[in-house]
Amino acid sequence: MTYCVGLMVNEGLVFLSDTRTNAGVDNIARYRKMFTWTTPGERALVLMTAGNLATSQAVLSLITEGIEAEAAGVETGEEALPSILTAPSMFRTAEIIGEAMVMVQNKYRRAFEQMSNGNSGATMILGGQRQGGAPRLFLIYPEGNFIEAAEDTPFLQIGEHKYGKPILDRVITMRTPLAEARKAALLSMDSTLRSNLSVGMPLDLTVLPRDAYAFSEQTRIEPEDAGFRQLSDAWSTALRDAFQTIS
Amino acid sequence: MTYCVGLMVNEGLVFLSDTRTNAGVDNIARYRKMFTWTTPGERALVLMTAGNLATSQAVLSLITEGIEAEAAGVETGEEALPSILTAPSMFRTAEIIGEAMVMVQNKYRRAFEQMSNGNSGATMILGGQRQGGAPRLFLIYPEGNFIEAAEDTPFLQIGEHKYGKPILDRVITMRTPLAEARKAALLSMDSTLRSNLSVGMPLDLTVLPRDAYAFSEQTRIEPEDAGFRQLSDAWSTALRDAFQTIS
Repeated sequence: MTYCVGLMVNEGLVFLSDTRTNAGVDNIARYRKMFTWTTPGERALVLMTAGNLATSQAVLSLITEGIEAEAAGVETGEEALPSILTAPSMFRTAEIIGEAMVMVQNKYRRAFEQMSNGNSGATMILGGQRQGGAPRLFLIYPEGNFIEAAEDTPFLQIGEHKYGKPILDRVITMRTPLAEARKAALLSMDSTLRSNLSVGMPLDLTVLPRDAYAFSEQTRIEPEDAGFRQLSDAWSTALRDAFQTIS
Repeated sequence: MTYCVGLMVNEGLVFLSDTRTNAGVDNIARYRKMFTWTTPGERALVLMTAGNLATSQAVLSLITEGIEAEAAGVETGEEALPSILTAPSMFRTAEIIGEAMVMVQNKYRRAFEQMSNGNSGATMILGGQRQGGAPRLFLIYPEGNFIEAAEDTPFLQIGEHKYGKPILDRVITMRTPLAEARKAALLSMDSTLRSNLSVGMPLDLTVLPRDAYAFSEQTRIEPEDAGFRQLSDAWSTALRDAFQTIS
């Protein structure tokens, strides 16, 4: 499986994903599930993917082709996607990715129906901001439609989301500072890593402050990362202490 | 859905279940999911159920009939279950319940195949102790087979188990005192209640100390229960404080 979480607070956006993919428990691999694009000072976008890896990769290829074709000034055919780097809004960006998702699945629908009891669907989290708009965060479904994070639900999760939800439910609001949101994302991931084998290190972390149109942090957190290990240990100790003290 | 958790520590067993059942989100009801039997000083048994309610109730009826028939000295037919109150071991008790589970599902299998895309399966947690044996805790599958809690995995969960697993993974070992195990069960439930609508108050709690062959606590915890609310609030505060202090 996968665990990806996106948080939207007043100060900006935080994105965190794991890198484990598996087909059964005996076929485990490591794939990047977080992808970013920037036009510095104008727009910054982050996409995270869960679900069918072939579908996710095909969607990414279509997005990349759309960007490259437009950048090269190539006349694009009916099948080509508009570039997400020149889309007039985050909403339109989510639409374009949704269209790519449906396009890919349509291509393989018959084969899936005939040959497979698998699922060709993927789910994605898109977040970012462009000049003239606010930071926005979307969850895009396999059907291509999407929902948006808002005041009442300032975070979105895909994949193995249940283990890491209680901590977010408790601490995250729009008023949470960006650094705290970053910490909450890491602790939410830590709970998931401890309780579910199908989610695994390393992690990809990206932080996008509001109105910066550029990432303040883009890190791969390796299993031996001292900072993450310290945070994880401190949280375990703090949780056990908290557990001991209450009655 | 449902959330039930059973914990086995050196000092005894703790059982906690919610009471919400639902068929879709617009058909919510309250049903007891925890059932207990005692022969004081000789044996004490607890059964918790998740999954298809009709199957769970039919299994319980069969168990009750088996107990009553044997108690009345009635000659039981081929279909009747042996009494779980005179079973020679906890292992045999788990087998009997597994047999009841298969019996019920066989009866409705054809109808389910023809008419329904629902699932007739149920999953159960059985725990208890009888004179001459140790406390034991089992998870019984719809197929009638079962696994047992052991040193490395001293708790078993059924239903919506993911939200409440991280806290148990962190604090529960066989050496956890019984009172702490009780607290951990309640906090695991609290996390689940907050994050998942399909799990709901009131709760049923039963504590069985080792070698007591009688329950030290059997409580229904109502939504307005001051003790549970205080524990829940204290845990929220402690978690938020812990979250603030670590870095």
